[in-house]
Amino acid sequence: MTGPAVAVVGATGAVGRTMLSILEERDFPMGELRVMASSRSAGSEIDTHLGTRTIEDLETADPAGIDVALFSAGAARSRQHAHRFVDAGAVVVDNSSAFRMEPGVPLVIADVNDHHIPDGPGIIANPNCTTMALMMAVGPLHRAAGLRSMVACSYQATGGSGRSGIDELMSQVSILGADPDLLVEGGWKDPGAQVFPRPIAFNVIPLAGAITNDFHTDEEWKMVNETRKILDVPEALIEPFCARVPVAVGHGIAATLRFSRPVARDEARDIIAAAPGVEVWEDTVPTALDAAGRDETLVGRIRPTVGEPGGIGLWVVSDNLRKGAALNTIQIAERFLAHG
Amino acid sequence: MTGPAVAVVGATGAVGRTMLSILEERDFPMGELRVMASSRSAGSEIDTHLGTRTIEDLETADPAGIDVALFSAGAARSRQHAHRFVDAGAVVVDNSSAFRMEPGVPLVIADVNDHHIPDGPGIIANPNCTTMALMMAVGPLHRAAGLRSMVACSYQATGGSGRSGIDELMSQVSILGADPDLLVEGGWKDPGAQVFPRPIAFNVIPLAGAITNDFHTDEEWKMVNETRKILDVPEALIEPFCARVPVAVGHGIAATLRFSRPVARDEARDIIAAAPGVEVWEDTVPTALDAAGRDETLVGRIRPTVGEPGGIGLWVVSDNLRKGAALNTIQIAERFLAHG
Repeated sequence: MTGPAVAVVGATGAVGRTMLSILEERDFPMGELRVMASSRSAGSEIDTHLGTRTIEDLETADPAGIDVALFSAGAARSRQHAHRFVDAGAVVVDNSSAFRMEPGVPLVIADVNDHHIPDGPGIIANPNCTTMALMMAVGPLHRAAGLRSMVACSYQATGGSGRSGIDELMSQVSILGADPDLLVEGGWKDPGAQVFPRPIAFNVIPLAGAITNDFHTDEEWKMVNETRKILDVPEALIEPFCARVPVAVGHGIAATLRFSRPVARDEARDIIAAAPGVEVWEDTVPTALDAAGRDETLVGRIRPTVGEPGGIGLWVVSDNLRKGAALNTIQIAERFLAHG
Repeated sequence: MTGPAVAVVGATGAVGRTMLSILEERDFPMGELRVMASSRSAGSEIDTHLGTRTIEDLETADPAGIDVALFSAGAARSRQHAHRFVDAGAVVVDNSSAFRMEPGVPLVIADVNDHHIPDGPGIIANPNCTTMALMMAVGPLHRAAGLRSMVACSYQATGGSGRSGIDELMSQVSILGADPDLLVEGGWKDPGAQVFPRPIAFNVIPLAGAITNDFHTDEEWKMVNETRKILDVPEALIEPFCARVPVAVGHGIAATLRFSRPVARDEARDIIAAAPGVEVWEDTVPTALDAAGRDETLVGRIRPTVGEPGGIGLWVVSDNLRKGAALNTIQIAERFLAHG
């Protein structure tokens, strides 16, 4: 085999496993594939399309010879280890929040701001999954008309918190679904939330992430700050709200957008429909279930604003494990390698 | 027994049954209780707290002697029969959309615009359940600071489409929940949607109601037009979006609000907390499951706008069968009777 040496770091998590599938699906050119995780998983074996691999302990793994490291092992591990890999000559594409807002670190969505991909080794950050879905539709509109303001409300899947989020949803569905009358009349028994702050089955939790400052959550601040960085719009006025819904995979966002000039509905639809990585659905509405397992971000309900004319309302939904995480990480690596 | 003669019209539906429970809970003063429904249910018996009643056929029922008629039998039946009841001397409180936007018909939320309740017989319309929940928080803020604009995104429960909506959710949960991997990877089998246009279990449908004009649904237009009528703000700039989520009961709405002057977060919290029929939750977030079975509308996530300062973001959630329908209908009747 010829081609770059690739390391998947955090190979046992939900995103890490999806990365391994996508590397196979896309026939990613590799001379070598190494898999790494925390010491808990180290030493066990994992099947890949290039054969069985033994999981290396990230703490002690030697990054020498690695060309591309795809990190999805949490922000703390990224902070601790990413620079070691860069110093050894690798480009690190990091799926965590560790470096996203660090000046000098590009924050890249493939097909939205590929021009931020650097030429040489270093860290490239993968944006937050909710922001990424949104930007797949907002990015092309911004290029055409200049984003001025955005009000965005998310409908985020439990899979955004990894496999344990989905497991918590399914377990609570069994418990609370056993007596639907209690869901109507009240008096349901607490099904024991661990991953989320409140029960998520048959519910909406109007809080994703943790409150940081100004009564907003870290997840909501990511929507503000990452949008500004990705689109180079530090002045854009953004009002974010992030909620969790009882969905396994597929983050949805409803957004109201205003631009530096009026944008007609049909123009907005044509711009988004022509953008790469996106499908506009108008015959039926795209739902979270439709997005699960798909690479494309789905956009629907494109409509004119009706209060103050000239703006655009729309709905975006995307697989948070694929484009929202693993797929974009791999797309960035592909485009970095294509430079060379 | 002394007191007015009351008729519950549409007594066999989800809202009608909730009306009968609430009449009992509130010990509504009644000299007589009659129950009516379509010819399909007529002749069968129904238990009430005042004893067993035989369901009268709405088509042929004689409205003579009825003081208060609580209608929840759909817009078509309201249009056909409500005036017959008014002509016989009754006040009709109508839960359907039939008369809401008719000039001269008051559209009332108890505790928000009680001053619109008339003195004599006639039709009083009960607002849309989503709009009603929202207005319980927005009304008090408007009175203090003057509503200028609102962007609102709903998270609506299946029970908004009646018992059959909840049944469809529960049945689809069994079918789709049997293989959670398909929810992650795609390839799930269509569970057969009847009530909603797409599967609702483990999903978000970014469409509640049917598209009417300007690419918005009737449900979204209700949010615009009913808000303007209830608050007497024909100039308010409103951008609505309505989605359905896999919840049994409890409509949630995330709103971004701007007023004729800047409103500080703590001021907004104090205003809402002092309003009747509302509870502000700040120690934990109020969810749809918390609202089910409760009379109070719950408000949380009250926060300052962070893009353009001076506005307020918030989350409202309310039992769509109670305050959103049956409770408000009965509260209007109580206040109408208190006039006399």
